[in-house]
Amino acid sequence: MRALHLGKTLTLREDYAAPTPPSGEALVRVRLAGVCNTDLELVRGYMSFRGVPGHEFVGEVVQCDSAPEWIGQCVVGEINAACGQCETCRAGRPTHCPHRTTLGIAGRDGAFAEYLCLPIANLHRVPENVPDEAAVFVEPLAAACEITQAIHIRPTDRVAVLGDGKLGLLCAQVLQLTGCDLLVIGHHEESLEILRRRGIQTTRRADIPMSAYDVVVEATGTPEGFATARQLVRPRGTIVLKSTYHGAVDANLTRVVVDEVTLAGSRCGPFEPALRLLAQNLVEVMPLIQGHLRLSEGLAAFERAGQRGTLKILIEP
Amino acid sequence: MRALHLGKTLTLREDYAAPTPPSGEALVRVRLAGVCNTDLELVRGYMSFRGVPGHEFVGEVVQCDSAPEWIGQCVVGEINAACGQCETCRAGRPTHCPHRTTLGIAGRDGAFAEYLCLPIANLHRVPENVPDEAAVFVEPLAAACEITQAIHIRPTDRVAVLGDGKLGLLCAQVLQLTGCDLLVIGHHEESLEILRRRGIQTTRRADIPMSAYDVVVEATGTPEGFATARQLVRPRGTIVLKSTYHGAVDANLTRVVVDEVTLAGSRCGPFEPALRLLAQNLVEVMPLIQGHLRLSEGLAAFERAGQRGTLKILIEP
Repeated sequence: MRALHLGKTLTLREDYAAPTPPSGEALVRVRLAGVCNTDLELVRGYMSFRGVPGHEFVGEVVQCDSAPEWIGQCVVGEINAACGQCETCRAGRPTHCPHRTTLGIAGRDGAFAEYLCLPIANLHRVPENVPDEAAVFVEPLAAACEITQAIHIRPTDRVAVLGDGKLGLLCAQVLQLTGCDLLVIGHHEESLEILRRRGIQTTRRADIPMSAYDVVVEATGTPEGFATARQLVRPRGTIVLKSTYHGAVDANLTRVVVDEVTLAGSRCGPFEPALRLLAQNLVEVMPLIQGHLRLSEGLAAFERAGQRGTLKILIEP
Repeated sequence: MRALHLGKTLTLREDYAAPTPPSGEALVRVRLAGVCNTDLELVRGYMSFRGVPGHEFVGEVVQCDSAPEWIGQCVVGEINAACGQCETCRAGRPTHCPHRTTLGIAGRDGAFAEYLCLPIANLHRVPENVPDEAAVFVEPLAAACEITQAIHIRPTDRVAVLGDGKLGLLCAQVLQLTGCDLLVIGHHEESLEILRRRGIQTTRRADIPMSAYDVVVEATGTPEGFATARQLVRPRGTIVLKSTYHGAVDANLTRVVVDEVTLAGSRCGPFEPALRLLAQNLVEVMPLIQGHLRLSEGLAAFERAGQRGTLKILIEP
């Protein structure tokens, strides 16, 4: 099959072996996949991943021996494939299973290919009124929902989102729904305009009230975001860390101690709420799409996704 | 001035004395007021209130000696007027001040009149894009927001709302925004249809899975709602009590102990988030309006509001 493969570099393969689903897994024909910042970081060396990247997808189940009722279903899929046996899994934290593989990120080929495999337990049916171009956003939208899953955002909270990239825009839309007093701080006029059309306050300025925010969501995707988040959060406030990148950050943790700030790392989130928000038109993802390329143009898709200010690039096999 | 007055019965007065604002208070010309179930309960004897009822309003500030910048502003107002001095107020719980008066409910004349008085601290400016017919819902919508203010509703939570009255419909809309798995259980097809049009699941049936809901919001306005809520909530789940009524409830608290259920009483909520939700079109209140009467027809308005299944009746002075 055709696939993008990350070895020493990212290459397009025409003859990559199609996967064979082991027992308990489904074979999914990929209909659409999205390029995430994490994919760009993988190419830079993050996770030392070798294989087919891509973890945001919507597809159709074409083989599923242990549960044939899934065949023909339109699905999205949770990306962490847990062992289900270990202490972490039995404690109800399968996304943190130390033996897990992660679709297109660690130990498991991903979605920039014609087919992928995932455990049946990872699959979620897509409601009929959610088109492929929206369903492909479920994984990052679930990651945005993980903020409100993990942290109680009160309607009276003052919340800042740092970053107007793909994830920042999704986090902002989910946070808006809490009724909180929300400000999104970004750099890209076009991206911020998407939020303003929904009534969300945005700014590109640096002169923002310091130590004023109950919750700051760091979604810049850069190491520099943390220092800004620390300046914005109030004493005893919370910083939600959403950025993952290749490399370390030079962080002043003494100020975190002195101001008694809580740092909350936050990664993958719940799929069903993300599907509900899309099906009920409570978030809008279509304006984030800035390119829809064929898999044969996959290298060009990555190049375009890597340009500063680019939002979502979709790849169709 | 013209006013509805609750003495032994509710009567329409043409010569009721207009209030004079004490220092620190504003005189507000009422433009529109809403009839709440609490108003109907007051007539039944709840709170033993005597005076002008009405606590949901939008109006215009016409006198405000200590802060003249408020004059001409379109406002809504928080209904609890706290003393600001006592231990409870200083502890940051002014809505629970033991010396408080409450607009149209306790010790303070309310909104079913041409004018009312409120402390300046209670006023909130209405954004220009929120019409009077929406702004008049801010007080009950804030009460709905108090649920997510007090309790962390997770996007993965299974939540049931009991009751499809005015407050139930507002609670359901606010809860929907969390992305939770929501079911509203009601009796009135027309009211439930308002929610279904927004993608919210509803039912009129009694055969609902028992002990299955993480959170149950009891908003039936009747003593019977509690027993149903207790059957629906899962062990270690939470029941949010929103109903206030004249009279006692016959509750089986032993099952609450055995199932380790949390009961959370919940009343007035934060106004600014409610105004944001209206200004950003995240909740819809217009379909709840079922009558718009003049104050001179106030007794008829109360009669109509008291009919089973009636949603919001507005009164315009």
